[in-house]
Amino acid sequence: MKTNPGRFFEDYRIGETITHAVPRTVSGGERALYHALYPARHALYSSDEFARASGLSASPIDDLVAFHVVFGKTVPDISLNAVANLGYAEGRWLAPVYPGDTLRSESTVIGLKENSNGKSGVVYVRTRGLNQNGDCVLEYVRWVMVRKNRLDAPAPEAVVPELKKALAPADLVIPAGLDFTRYDFALAGEPHRWGDYQVGEQIDHVDGVTIEEAEHMIATRLWQNTAKVHFDATFRDDGKRLIYGGHIISMARALSFNGLANAQMIVALNGGAHANPCFSGDTVKAWSEVLDKADTDAPGVGAIRLRLVAVKQGAAPFALKGEDGKYAPEVLLDLDYWAVMPK
Amino acid sequence: MKTNPGRFFEDYRIGETITHAVPRTVSGGERALYHALYPARHALYSSDEFARASGLSASPIDDLVAFHVVFGKTVPDISLNAVANLGYAEGRWLAPVYPGDTLRSESTVIGLKENSNGKSGVVYVRTRGLNQNGDCVLEYVRWVMVRKNRLDAPAPEAVVPELKKALAPADLVIPAGLDFTRYDFALAGEPHRWGDYQVGEQIDHVDGVTIEEAEHMIATRLWQNTAKVHFDATFRDDGKRLIYGGHIISMARALSFNGLANAQMIVALNGGAHANPCFSGDTVKAWSEVLDKADTDAPGVGAIRLRLVAVKQGAAPFALKGEDGKYAPEVLLDLDYWAVMPK
Amino acid sequence: MKTNPGRFFEDYRIGETITHAVPRTVSGGERALYHALYPARHALYSSDEFARASGLSASPIDDLVAFHVVFGKTVPDISLNAVANLGYAEGRWLAPVYPGDTLRSESTVIGLKENSNGKSGVVYVRTRGLNQNGDCVLEYVRWVMVRKNRLDAPAPEAVVPELKKALAPADLVIPAGLDFTRYDFALAGEPHRWGDYQVGEQIDHVDGVTIEEAEHMIATRLWQNTAKVHFDATFRDDGKRLIYGGHIISMARALSFNGLANAQMIVALNGGAHANPCFSGDTVKAWSEVLDKADTDAPGVGAIRLRLVAVKQGAAPFALKGEDGKYAPEVLLDLDYWAVMPK
Repeated sequence: MKTNPGRFFEDYRIGETITHAVPRTVSGGERALYHALYPARHALYSSDEFARASGLSASPIDDLVAFHVVFGKTVPDISLNAVANLGYAEGRWLAPVYPGDTLRSESTVIGLKENSNGKSGVVYVRTRGLNQNGDCVLEYVRWVMVRKNRLDAPAPEAVVPELKKALAPADLVIPAGLDFTRYDFALAGEPHRWGDYQVGEQIDHVDGVTIEEAEHMIATRLWQNTAKVHFDATFRDDGKRLIYGGHIISMARALSFNGLANAQMIVALNGGAHANPCFSGDTVKAWSEVLDKADTDAPGVGAIRLRLVAVKQGAAPFALKGEDGKYAPEVLLDLDYWAVMPK
Repeated sequence: MKTNPGRFFEDYRIGETITHAVPRTVSGGERALYHALYPARHALYSSDEFARASGLSASPIDDLVAFHVVFGKTVPDISLNAVANLGYAEGRWLAPVYPGDTLRSESTVIGLKENSNGKSGVVYVRTRGLNQNGDCVLEYVRWVMVRKNRLDAPAPEAVVPELKKALAPADLVIPAGLDFTRYDFALAGEPHRWGDYQVGEQIDHVDGVTIEEAEHMIATRLWQNTAKVHFDATFRDDGKRLIYGGHIISMARALSFNGLANAQMIVALNGGAHANPCFSGDTVKAWSEVLDKADTDAPGVGAIRLRLVAVKQGAAPFALKGEDGKYAPEVLLDLDYWAVMPK
Repeated sequence: MKTNPGRFFEDYRIGETITHAVPRTVSGGERALYHALYPARHALYSSDEFARASGLSASPIDDLVAFHVVFGKTVPDISLNAVANLGYAEGRWLAPVYPGDTLRSESTVIGLKENSNGKSGVVYVRTRGLNQNGDCVLEYVRWVMVRKNRLDAPAPEAVVPELKKALAPADLVIPAGLDFTRYDFALAGEPHRWGDYQVGEQIDHVDGVTIEEAEHMIATRLWQNTAKVHFDATFRDDGKRLIYGGHIISMARALSFNGLANAQMIVALNGGAHANPCFSGDTVKAWSEVLDKADTDAPGVGAIRLRLVAVKQGAAPFALKGEDGKYAPEVLLDLDYWAVMPK
């Protein structure tokens, strides 16, 4: 058979590293498309001049573009036969990605645990995004539930990695040269500094975007994520195309500009859950909560840990989970990340 | 509150200059998207070779891209609480914008007049688009009706600027170096020269485009115009997303290629009215009328003043206003601009 | 009349060469859009590094981008009054197209045959795409049925060119410098070499994409193909917008990655038929058949001749034509091309 059947649970081995296919050179084209698909307005990713005034050589490609490009490459090897995307942890952005850079991905299997039903299991991988110089620009752990193909394949010895609940401030990598001492708050869009945010503070980002089929498919293809559930209306029994979870991440992050315009760069992903599926016609809104704050050694740069929640129409203000501990049905995404802000 | 509430009528002061947020570096990405979103075919904006043969260093970014980028930045400060976009005047393109340029915007308040109902007022601003060298690449006056927040705020002294009905030929700035003496009409797409157009002549541009939600949202976001009425289907009572007026301007201008292929560069915006709203599913067509002609000092370059009218399905040929002086319900846009053509 | 009425059958003369309008400079923007509109993953067109390791200077613009750009320019002169697009032959890609290149098109009339009804005729043209250096990057023959405007115009002497059923291996032009001896199959996405494919082998490419109005219009406009039947929902009696046949070619070719990931570059188009129309809401899938194989002089490079068939929902596996010799109603495209693969 010439087509890719994907890997099944019994095909993974602890410690093996999978080279993912199709390296990708990014350009101003990906950048413009990102601005066209999401209401992204963070100045550092919009203006070369603003980025240079912040100590970088030019405006990088959005951190989430890097994430999506790296993630998309893993789909044919990791999640083609996945039943569920269970979680993220220990995500770190290690170097900015610039137009002209070429990204590729590789994943190491760091955990395996067969389910008691014997029909599927959980696979943990640590994925790294590498540029043309071999520098790791991004790494994260993801775990997915994957079907078995041969139900009689023996269960592997269970290995469940210990993962940090959140990256510690000392784990964060601030881009080399980043300097916010000359930060222009007027050009950035909001006056609020790192010191103006309090742990526990919640921010309703106000704006909403109604999702269209064409847009989520254009976005998902752009990251060369070809999982058929996103594109083929004949694939699911209900005739609906499931929207790539990363589309909701980017939409929510872009919406969070209104209230967090100065949370410029994402430096870590502590965790995340795609709480409920999203479909075309849903209207996505977002709110954030300040979870933690930390100082950094970079001049003028503070770190802020944020919960970013995407919801759809009908959500109650700041509602997250019910008394049963389950996500409210209108919650689409619950993401925990560190960003850097001017002090 | 961390989110932007926008300015209300009582927040503007005559003479103040507002720095708008989020500078933007444009690239071949914005250019490609413009060609993908509109049936734009003017050769000067499509081919570096054609632009060089016309005396420019390369093919600029479309004049309307410059307009939309500059305009989009003003929305959070000028029109977030606007009830209506009332008019444009004295618009001039002062220098071409090239890939790699970074644009920012600022607006000076030049007029204020509270409405007699005491609930809103008209704000006049002169907006300038600046590149990374501080050169003004575009300026225009816009006036909008803005709500008051504190109804007891005192009415400011009424100041209504005197605005030109149209730019005079002497006001037009022809891009430095522009030379149409070696103009290739075959490559440009039509044989008609400046001398072939007569004042009063009307041109039906024939082609039509049916508008999709995904397309107008992609376009509007590309200009970082985040007014929620364009994106959030839950915002208006009728569940419709209102299409950004600039989308209709670009659509009509691109459709006008068929009959005005040689009206290459827009150099001035004399005025414009968004006569009726446009929604997804409408089919947009366009017609033009030659309002004036003028010679220029640039070699081989003539100026032509055009009325560009966008209409939707059901419009009568060349119909504009009824006997009551009001726009026909199928008229979407009535724009008055100067362009330059080969003589 | 200032607008373009298009040419009618009686307007073509054997031997004349038509210069098509609107040259186009391509950039990373067109490349990014191509990846966003189609699930394109061939590594040579995705990564500068991969292309350099294959002996090229950088990653070229997809071969089908070159085709669409060249083809789009011919529409106003060749097919504006066409009743049907009848066929392609003798298509060859002669040089890669890179970001920064400027393309233009010209067509020579090589055949004319009036239909017996006297109301239309078949026009054969050989179209060439030229870059800014005047190098021909692409050529192909297309024939279309075009309406007559003046029914009393005399029928021209019938000239029907002899066209090759398929390009011979000796006709194929392999890009200068192409070298697959260091080909990285892991990065390319599949392990199958040229030697692994057998003549007669059929491959079901598995994945499907449901077509949206916004996407096919964005794609078609990107190639500056402005035929109103693709854009104007009021044009056809049934209110449907007909999808540009080239959109189906690109969709099918991109889907064929799954099973033909190493069929990297298209070097010849032997023939093609748009068997049935496609409309928004249809779900497109694809299958291929190996028609022929040939060695080449380039190091590590083999040539493979493929039939690429696009079908829509409801198609039987590998079904092409019925017993009556007509295409099954679910077949959208039957394309015959040569590609190059690593040996």
